[in-house]
Amino acid sequence: MGTIFKERTKVDDARRIFLDVIQPIGDTEKILVEACSGRVLASEIIAQRNVPHYRRAAMDGYAVRSSDTIGASPTNPVMLHVDDEITEGVGVRVHTGSPVPEGADAVIMIEDTRLIGDMLEIRAQVHPHKHVGCVGEDIHEGEKVLSKGHLLRPCDSAVIASLGIQSVLVYRKPVVAVIPTGEELLPRTTAGIPPSGMVLETNSLMVGLYVEKWGANARYCYIVLDKPKLIREAIQSNLDADMIVICGGTSVGERDHVPEVVDSLGKILIHGVGLSPGKPTALGIIGKVPVVCLPGYPVAGLVGLFAFARAALRKVGHVPDVPDTVVRLPLKSKISSRIGYMTYARVVIDNDVVHPLMTSGSGVLSSVAKSDGFVIVPENVEGYVEGQNVDVVLIE
Amino acid sequence: MGTIFKERTKVDDARRIFLDVIQPIGDTEKILVEACSGRVLASEIIAQRNVPHYRRAAMDGYAVRSSDTIGASPTNPVMLHVDDEITEGVGVRVHTGSPVPEGADAVIMIEDTRLIGDMLEIRAQVHPHKHVGCVGEDIHEGEKVLSKGHLLRPCDSAVIASLGIQSVLVYRKPVVAVIPTGEELLPRTTAGIPPSGMVLETNSLMVGLYVEKWGANARYCYIVLDKPKLIREAIQSNLDADMIVICGGTSVGERDHVPEVVDSLGKILIHGVGLSPGKPTALGIIGKVPVVCLPGYPVAGLVGLFAFARAALRKVGHVPDVPDTVVRLPLKSKISSRIGYMTYARVVIDNDVVHPLMTSGSGVLSSVAKSDGFVIVPENVEGYVEGQNVDVVLIE
Repeated sequence: MGTIFKERTKVDDARRIFLDVIQPIGDTEKILVEACSGRVLASEIIAQRNVPHYRRAAMDGYAVRSSDTIGASPTNPVMLHVDDEITEGVGVRVHTGSPVPEGADAVIMIEDTRLIGDMLEIRAQVHPHKHVGCVGEDIHEGEKVLSKGHLLRPCDSAVIASLGIQSVLVYRKPVVAVIPTGEELLPRTTAGIPPSGMVLETNSLMVGLYVEKWGANARYCYIVLDKPKLIREAIQSNLDADMIVICGGTSVGERDHVPEVVDSLGKILIHGVGLSPGKPTALGIIGKVPVVCLPGYPVAGLVGLFAFARAALRKVGHVPDVPDTVVRLPLKSKISSRIGYMTYARVVIDNDVVHPLMTSGSGVLSSVAKSDGFVIVPENVEGYVEGQNVDVVLIE
Repeated sequence: MGTIFKERTKVDDARRIFLDVIQPIGDTEKILVEACSGRVLASEIIAQRNVPHYRRAAMDGYAVRSSDTIGASPTNPVMLHVDDEITEGVGVRVHTGSPVPEGADAVIMIEDTRLIGDMLEIRAQVHPHKHVGCVGEDIHEGEKVLSKGHLLRPCDSAVIASLGIQSVLVYRKPVVAVIPTGEELLPRTTAGIPPSGMVLETNSLMVGLYVEKWGANARYCYIVLDKPKLIREAIQSNLDADMIVICGGTSVGERDHVPEVVDSLGKILIHGVGLSPGKPTALGIIGKVPVVCLPGYPVAGLVGLFAFARAALRKVGHVPDVPDTVVRLPLKSKISSRIGYMTYARVVIDNDVVHPLMTSGSGVLSSVAKSDGFVIVPENVEGYVEGQNVDVVLIE
């Protein structure tokens, strides 16, 4: 980068300062349970019925009065009649999940019985309630099954649907406006090789696909030239969004106006972080709308996105924090890092060995496609040596 | 379960035997790059252009002939003219990303210059190529950028789009037919509390949402009664799918016909695994269609789904194996496990401590909603003791 920032905030401090000003959205919506995967509950789920809602046989076998089985054993079996209703001395055939007929208080497993004609040999004693699922034993009416704020997984859908619930109240998906800036940019659908000095705009696509993966709806905005007035208009026309991500124009060069414009409309909280790549990242807020200003360099932008935008978006959308997927493997060769910077070193995993990519440029696009993950070197560590075991955060 | 299986295959063996017979699908489709996230490349991506496609300034500063800067230093600066074209003794203003004008072979950082009127003071010497990104330096024309079989991430979309590529060839999404069986089942939209002995069918919803999360399209089938003829017809009418998951009817009771029917149409490879819960899981193949028969008990079905269906689906759809998200934390109380069974113990994480859920039943629905993850106890381990650090696989 080379440019000089007035400040350089530590990544964790910057993230905390930013998250502190973010208000989660309040809007909710009702959705069908079949669409609930990945959404966040906006109200608790209370069971309106018991599970099971009837006395349920937990085994294949015979429903009996347990008192009829006292003393039964393989060497000293008890003989019962088989019938459809329970009275003294009668067993009723049940399957797993069947109702246990009135009068019976236990189920004897089929393995502990033998059918001889219409007589049933009972070869074990059963206690009252044995293999009988009581009403409400699993979930009782009025019980809280899932809490407000729970991130719904497919397995939760089964529990919810089992209670006869067809729809759930969830938080609305946040809308994230993604604004690419830079006069060197052309729409990525431009035919042919661009003129010298012009490049295809692709950062907004990357950001948009990530925020959608993280549970938001992306609003893709048109390219904005490096003019404060135009940047201001683009931001103002997106202040109805729940979050704004601006790509490019965040450094301190002649063409970098984004943080200044954000500050004029609201407040820039952070400009310049101890993040490598990603130092020119700026974080601000306009009214209630958090604004993440990412460097235009693709790798720096990606790192800024992971380091700040993801956590911010989770807070906006009430999404609980999920740990990264990490693998711990030995390094093929050393990783160097500057003290004072949290460094995201791009690495390839090959045969369970971590190979650092030999590129330092924050603009080197190919390094993104080649990387399996990042080794994140904290600010106070100078790097890692060959052979050392390191945590690789897989790039999702 | 209590029922007796002829065999009880180890989980890893069962998975290997099953995966060995699975053929990945061959069909491909062309999709727009904006829809590529989570899809798998069916052909490599070759760059048809250079990145950068012009000589690019890597810094804000002045493009110069490096020979003009020889000997320059803060105490002994060299003076150049500023102009729009390079000749001897001329510097041309460039921004990061600007084309480096013909005749210039280096860029001097703005920090190493001072503008005095229209004269430029050069306070450092630069070598040829300094801060100049050569044509194709990042990605060169003809280079393979991404391999066939690569799982596309949002960051890859930016790389692909930067090459002017609008669409990519990916494998078609597998279709997974999900067939619920059981005469105790009612459609989950049934109003009111079901009669005794009847329950709402929710396993297919859970399975469907998981397979969609794992990159497939789910085909939700209607409930099939426990009649071999009906099960056979349901399977036959779904043999155009890429995989079939059948819920229920996999045990060895009177009403369990599924494995037998699958075997009559194709081949059951595995019936009964050393998995707890999930022992009655059966795995088979009909023609080219892998068939996963899951126990009807929700928790057992969920575990069977994670242990077998996910890996199978990944193979069908060419999706590379992704490690689970795991956190390592101490146990609040012991977990017991039966030797010979791989046990999926449901746990809650509270204040960075792992609490085993005190439920043993494979049907206990509420335990699914309450669990954050599984502690997986291998076959040869009897369990874990209080205070021991364990890996918790988070339930996705």
